[in-house]
Amino acid sequence: MAAETSIRKLPSLSGLRHRRNPLEDNPYFHPSNGFYITPSDVILAQVAYDHSAHSQSRVAYHRAGPRREIMYEPSAVKAAIVTCGGLCPGMNTVIRELVVGLWELYGVREIYGIPAGYRGFYSMKAVKLDPKAVHDWHKKGGTVLATSRGGFHLQKIVDAIHLNGYNQVYIIGGDGTMRGAVEIFKEISLRKLEVGITVIPKTVDNDVGIIDRSFGFQTAVEMAQEAISAAHVEAESAVNGIGLVKLMGRSTGHIALHATLSSRDVDCCLIPEMDFYLEGKGGLFEFLEKRLKERGHAVLVVAEGAGQEMIPRNESQKQERDESGNAVFLDVGVWFKSVLKAWWEREHPDELFTVKYIDPTYMIRAVPANATDNLYCTLLAHSAIHGVMAGYTGFVPGPINGNYAYIPLEEVAQTKNQVNTRDHKWAWVRSVTNQPDFETNVKG
Amino acid sequence: MAAETSIRKLPSLSGLRHRRNPLEDNPYFHPSNGFYITPSDVILAQVAYDHSAHSQSRVAYHRAGPRREIMYEPSAVKAAIVTCGGLCPGMNTVIRELVVGLWELYGVREIYGIPAGYRGFYSMKAVKLDPKAVHDWHKKGGTVLATSRGGFHLQKIVDAIHLNGYNQVYIIGGDGTMRGAVEIFKEISLRKLEVGITVIPKTVDNDVGIIDRSFGFQTAVEMAQEAISAAHVEAESAVNGIGLVKLMGRSTGHIALHATLSSRDVDCCLIPEMDFYLEGKGGLFEFLEKRLKERGHAVLVVAEGAGQEMIPRNESQKQERDESGNAVFLDVGVWFKSVLKAWWEREHPDELFTVKYIDPTYMIRAVPANATDNLYCTLLAHSAIHGVMAGYTGFVPGPINGNYAYIPLEEVAQTKNQVNTRDHKWAWVRSVTNQPDFETNVKG
Amino acid sequence: MAAETSIRKLPSLSGLRHRRNPLEDNPYFHPSNGFYITPSDVILAQVAYDHSAHSQSRVAYHRAGPRREIMYEPSAVKAAIVTCGGLCPGMNTVIRELVVGLWELYGVREIYGIPAGYRGFYSMKAVKLDPKAVHDWHKKGGTVLATSRGGFHLQKIVDAIHLNGYNQVYIIGGDGTMRGAVEIFKEISLRKLEVGITVIPKTVDNDVGIIDRSFGFQTAVEMAQEAISAAHVEAESAVNGIGLVKLMGRSTGHIALHATLSSRDVDCCLIPEMDFYLEGKGGLFEFLEKRLKERGHAVLVVAEGAGQEMIPRNESQKQERDESGNAVFLDVGVWFKSVLKAWWEREHPDELFTVKYIDPTYMIRAVPANATDNLYCTLLAHSAIHGVMAGYTGFVPGPINGNYAYIPLEEVAQTKNQVNTRDHKWAWVRSVTNQPDFETNVKG
Amino acid sequence: MAAETSIRKLPSLSGLRHRRNPLEDNPYFHPSNGFYITPSDVILAQVAYDHSAHSQSRVAYHRAGPRREIMYEPSAVKAAIVTCGGLCPGMNTVIRELVVGLWELYGVREIYGIPAGYRGFYSMKAVKLDPKAVHDWHKKGGTVLATSRGGFHLQKIVDAIHLNGYNQVYIIGGDGTMRGAVEIFKEISLRKLEVGITVIPKTVDNDVGIIDRSFGFQTAVEMAQEAISAAHVEAESAVNGIGLVKLMGRSTGHIALHATLSSRDVDCCLIPEMDFYLEGKGGLFEFLEKRLKERGHAVLVVAEGAGQEMIPRNESQKQERDESGNAVFLDVGVWFKSVLKAWWEREHPDELFTVKYIDPTYMIRAVPANATDNLYCTLLAHSAIHGVMAGYTGFVPGPINGNYAYIPLEEVAQTKNQVNTRDHKWAWVRSVTNQPDFETNVKG
Repeated sequence: MAAETSIRKLPSLSGLRHRRNPLEDNPYFHPSNGFYITPSDVILAQVAYDHSAHSQSRVAYHRAGPRREIMYEPSAVKAAIVTCGGLCPGMNTVIRELVVGLWELYGVREIYGIPAGYRGFYSMKAVKLDPKAVHDWHKKGGTVLATSRGGFHLQKIVDAIHLNGYNQVYIIGGDGTMRGAVEIFKEISLRKLEVGITVIPKTVDNDVGIIDRSFGFQTAVEMAQEAISAAHVEAESAVNGIGLVKLMGRSTGHIALHATLSSRDVDCCLIPEMDFYLEGKGGLFEFLEKRLKERGHAVLVVAEGAGQEMIPRNESQKQERDESGNAVFLDVGVWFKSVLKAWWEREHPDELFTVKYIDPTYMIRAVPANATDNLYCTLLAHSAIHGVMAGYTGFVPGPINGNYAYIPLEEVAQTKNQVNTRDHKWAWVRSVTNQPDFETNVKG
Repeated sequence: MAAETSIRKLPSLSGLRHRRNPLEDNPYFHPSNGFYITPSDVILAQVAYDHSAHSQSRVAYHRAGPRREIMYEPSAVKAAIVTCGGLCPGMNTVIRELVVGLWELYGVREIYGIPAGYRGFYSMKAVKLDPKAVHDWHKKGGTVLATSRGGFHLQKIVDAIHLNGYNQVYIIGGDGTMRGAVEIFKEISLRKLEVGITVIPKTVDNDVGIIDRSFGFQTAVEMAQEAISAAHVEAESAVNGIGLVKLMGRSTGHIALHATLSSRDVDCCLIPEMDFYLEGKGGLFEFLEKRLKERGHAVLVVAEGAGQEMIPRNESQKQERDESGNAVFLDVGVWFKSVLKAWWEREHPDELFTVKYIDPTYMIRAVPANATDNLYCTLLAHSAIHGVMAGYTGFVPGPINGNYAYIPLEEVAQTKNQVNTRDHKWAWVRSVTNQPDFETNVKG
Repeated sequence: MAAETSIRKLPSLSGLRHRRNPLEDNPYFHPSNGFYITPSDVILAQVAYDHSAHSQSRVAYHRAGPRREIMYEPSAVKAAIVTCGGLCPGMNTVIRELVVGLWELYGVREIYGIPAGYRGFYSMKAVKLDPKAVHDWHKKGGTVLATSRGGFHLQKIVDAIHLNGYNQVYIIGGDGTMRGAVEIFKEISLRKLEVGITVIPKTVDNDVGIIDRSFGFQTAVEMAQEAISAAHVEAESAVNGIGLVKLMGRSTGHIALHATLSSRDVDCCLIPEMDFYLEGKGGLFEFLEKRLKERGHAVLVVAEGAGQEMIPRNESQKQERDESGNAVFLDVGVWFKSVLKAWWEREHPDELFTVKYIDPTYMIRAVPANATDNLYCTLLAHSAIHGVMAGYTGFVPGPINGNYAYIPLEEVAQTKNQVNTRDHKWAWVRSVTNQPDFETNVKG
Repeated sequence: MAAETSIRKLPSLSGLRHRRNPLEDNPYFHPSNGFYITPSDVILAQVAYDHSAHSQSRVAYHRAGPRREIMYEPSAVKAAIVTCGGLCPGMNTVIRELVVGLWELYGVREIYGIPAGYRGFYSMKAVKLDPKAVHDWHKKGGTVLATSRGGFHLQKIVDAIHLNGYNQVYIIGGDGTMRGAVEIFKEISLRKLEVGITVIPKTVDNDVGIIDRSFGFQTAVEMAQEAISAAHVEAESAVNGIGLVKLMGRSTGHIALHATLSSRDVDCCLIPEMDFYLEGKGGLFEFLEKRLKERGHAVLVVAEGAGQEMIPRNESQKQERDESGNAVFLDVGVWFKSVLKAWWEREHPDELFTVKYIDPTYMIRAVPANATDNLYCTLLAHSAIHGVMAGYTGFVPGPINGNYAYIPLEEVAQTKNQVNTRDHKWAWVRSVTNQPDFETNVKG
């Protein structure tokens, strides 16, 4: 079974001169053979395949890590670090490790934090950073550089990069930020500027494609357990009590899925990837009626993006967009609370019924990274530095099948990591919750 | 300086025969002298006084604890335990210790849990309880007996008590529940029923008068820290970020005050006991403007009952009452979010501004009691049992100046423990937050 | 029933001139009447008494709090803060609040931290402190000033106090430190130095007399639960498993008692105040044998000072003293592990048996104060400041029956807060654990 | 570049009849195409390789997951579950999910827990298990089935398996247990018994080869942070303070490495894979001397297996073996405490110096799995069930490059996952701690 493997080409800066990697003299690394990664070291995208199938073409990505030769004179590097979009556990650790990594591994001394997202490039004073300044940032939630949505003016940003002489730009952000980074990368190439640009994907929803998972996701699932236990206690302590928890997940239900599987106190988990319906045979109300009869309580976990199309909107709400251009979601939790109360009022006017709605979003987003995410953020940041130093640009560092690789930015920006409601994990969620199989049930 | 002390008289059941306390034969207690409490053992209500002032009359309460003689034959005791109103950390520990205390201290074997609050007396089947059944309840949040608001039909409840032969009734509830208990007590006296009734005050707001503090309060203040830290991180990580936290406290601001003093990340703490205003000189907006300029962020803690009168209401909202007859509060957090945004829009239309609103109510109410509250709930439950066994009725057990006493139910039901905004603690809150002194500032 | 009350006299500095309290102009306090404490405001030491008993003399202490007139010109105050002895949750909060309190309440600007305990006075450079420097210390465990045992050279210390011109000395330490402070206080009086000296009692064991409880104690009991749960899991997961936890408590068993009552997973709690024996009828081995047969596992909590006299010592061990002059304890946990194994080996040579010994001491001592202790440390620090500013010296601030008072240092230094094994709490510990009543059992 | 892939052959039971997988009728799974795994579905062992290198032979393993046809009639399955060796977070989750998975996925009703490890097969009564019994086990640390070391009598165990009619055996244990399982597997094959046997690797040290990581490892690294922070506070709060933490890791330093990288409060990390020395140039004492001078404190993390050969042993200690046949380790922490004190006594007799030693082993092992490990244990247990049901035996389920596969038991039992002290991660540990490069330094 011969298998042809195509290696994803990485954009790289051409005009720079090769130099010896300072790691050679680093007191801690004294690299032995196999330490430096060569251009032919690759990571296979796909490890699970059908051995009997005729030859299939396979994809591989360049392996992350330090190269024997780098393309920058460390003393000439001027690096900019910027954080965009919503908060996510681990942002401060990534910033810290970019600063400490540039400083300790490559001897870079000009490292600047761009305040408040993309707009910071052209409207705010950059902040000089060094290991001492960022010493204990990994113990703080959020981003000390501050962040914001929107403010993306391509020309102003690239002008600012150029005027300030940044030749390495490290962007930490989600899908909206990535789309912006693609434009910045193209504009820089158009202007033939020798600027290396990389994006470290930040999405607590874990919805970025190709890489194994996004940083902060595991910390978020851990914190979600507190909200689900509280909802479970509130529901159990009431007569016909429903505990309703809204979890992050605009277009993907990974946090809801993982939190449900880890908790096992959840009766129904609703995610954006799966349609559901309320009334009639096989609907949610029928299921909740049965569950309340059996156990007297139920816990409902809903991803923020689930059922959005079912929520009635007035005209202005239909048009509304947030600063990143995303359709403004209505609070599916508040809506669920009202439709559940209306349903019960209609069906059981004289019986007790309470819905306790918990939205733990900010109490989840704002915590520091846990130990696992802290280490993951460190390896992500170092991979990014090694890649930029090697002259690569327009790439995203990330683990593929557990091994760190460099993925073309444009490829990542177009992919989405959706929950596959046909695979084992989602089947096991429904088996753990015994919730209706909305997708199969024909609406009564 | 002669000081006359008046002892608060406790109602007690007259028709019962004195019996030897089974603690005499208990393998663990073998009481020495001073172990049993006599009717002349009292607890002074006031320990701080002006030594130079001419004689003042002083109040004392009967000391809690086991009496040498009890008024029930243990095998004839049929005890009912009921939990009413909202959740509070420690409810399950109180239930557990009532059951284990009755069983182990006094050899009572007929102990019943009334499901779902007052209505459970006449509309639900009671649950037989024993130490094995309640073994690990102290590790669970909420109340395994379930609770609800309302359902208070005096005659139905007292009929049910009588028909089921309960001669000891242990009620766990807040101010609304206490008012109901006063009526039950009076009705029982009217009907000359030999039923001992006691109320263990449950109010996470710590707003019950006379006793030092209510169980669950310290656990709640501890959990509130998580919400305040999250709000602080969200605010610090934004441009002109405001972190807004709504904490429990319908008519008293104790949780907000204590959480603010313990955290020190709070810029302004608003409580029901203190009026405030938004616009003009010395108002909240002026203060927030200044704070955002100085630090770029601010954290605002608001008790749910603060500013209710400032929130516009339509007619139906003005009439609305919850099941316990309390005026339905509008969500002061949602209101604050809208007025803050409107203010900023008006004053700084082109500047970034975000309000992140966190309502951690259910994540605070639903946790199990921490170690300190666990022990406190134990001593409260045992005090209640000793009192009822001694023939007292219509009383509330609780610590007064750190010593457990029995307080007439009617006296507690009429008192409120408000924050004194003229005392040192509130002065220190304002000193820690540097917030405006609304009460002194004349509205600009 | 006339009752004569004797007020405990407080030493005070005579030679200082009365001044107006700067709190008068403080923007947050604008004191109303009743705000300032007068010399005749007192706190009764005893609130529980026998109303029928003939007149008893009663003791009262001066109430803590700000006086209308103070005895220092704030700009002339030079304050020294020192931490001695072992760590305890809350030490950093007390230091922080002494600095912020002196600065904000009284406008003091010369505040110094003495490094590493008493020795720091004469052998180390003092550290200038201000609110900015101590801003987030309350979130850190331990003491940023560092501490040590011993190094107590009276003359060198008082010389250093005098030479450096400190006129206010705030000492944070336990019983050994207090005994040293008594000598310093006497030496200062002897030399007629106008130096106010106060001790804030720091003993995680809660063994200091007269005051309600010591700071950090509640946090310690909370943390002890983690160690007891781990011991319980290890014991349950083994065949004939014993989980053995050593908790702090040199001469008093408060932490062991409170942790046992809060956890309820403990089978036997051994404290210094209670003798026990291993072999024979009613001994510990007989009890453990029975418990292992019933449940297959047992959890044993031992205070470090319990059973010390039963541990065999060689001659040098008999003489050993630590830097504070305390007899060096041998590790009762290591001893118990060996005697338990030897016992089982002897009685059941062929049966499985494991002892898992956990010493969580440093993981308990080193955590930051929880919310309750954070607030308690704040009020303790402020009480100390108000007292010293009012010219009092040689006193200890602390809550008596929930109200803050000033207690003569010499009186506190001589008292011990032991567990009363005849009272209700210890009876309930034995009732919860069903452990043998060693004190009553006659050794078989 | 043609690459020949060799698929690792799995032992399987020959004499069983193919049957339709009951998942076909399962209300939650209704498998679509691609749901069932075929024998030609494989997982590549190696995803990182040199694309330019001439053809290399590559290894692949059979992919885990349900097969269209199974080899057991569910009603005829009699499954035995046993837990051996030390505790590890997640053991109860694996047991729970084996029971719930067998019950819900395959309709198996005869599921038995073998108490107390291998010895339980022949010396204890098995415990019947069903979903209700194991309902909340995932929230408990340890193993409800209890575990023990040793008791491995091959013939007695296989006799018991045979006599009790178990035809599926699920073993949860570490390397010693795995070696035992290989013998059981061989004996079963020798006796031609139709018994499927699988081992779910349990080693909190993460030292099992081939699979990505072992369950409970991430939870352990998280808990280790508490011990390191406590050691850091104790060291910082002392004069010349050393915080010494011993972490699990008999032959591998993964927990010490990961905990050090996540915490960043560690000055030196010593692991079994790396020799080190104390005295002389480039030794540990020289480094600690320098570090204490710079910062006044240092934190030393030591894996239990590090430096064992340096600890002096008497003859009997040299011979000692534990029940699993492992050489009995001496407590490297106790040893370090004594050699550090002796060193300081020799070098700085008059200077203060304290070593605070923390052994958090049982407080780490005994906690329940965190959310990430909870999910991981679920997928491991289900993979094991699918494999046994498909007729495979003598295999270990586990993720390889993030995809679940079946690995021959004998292959896993021979591999060790050691820390590679030449790779990037260990280099970054030394860069974060700035500790000496013992391996390169020539002993002075």
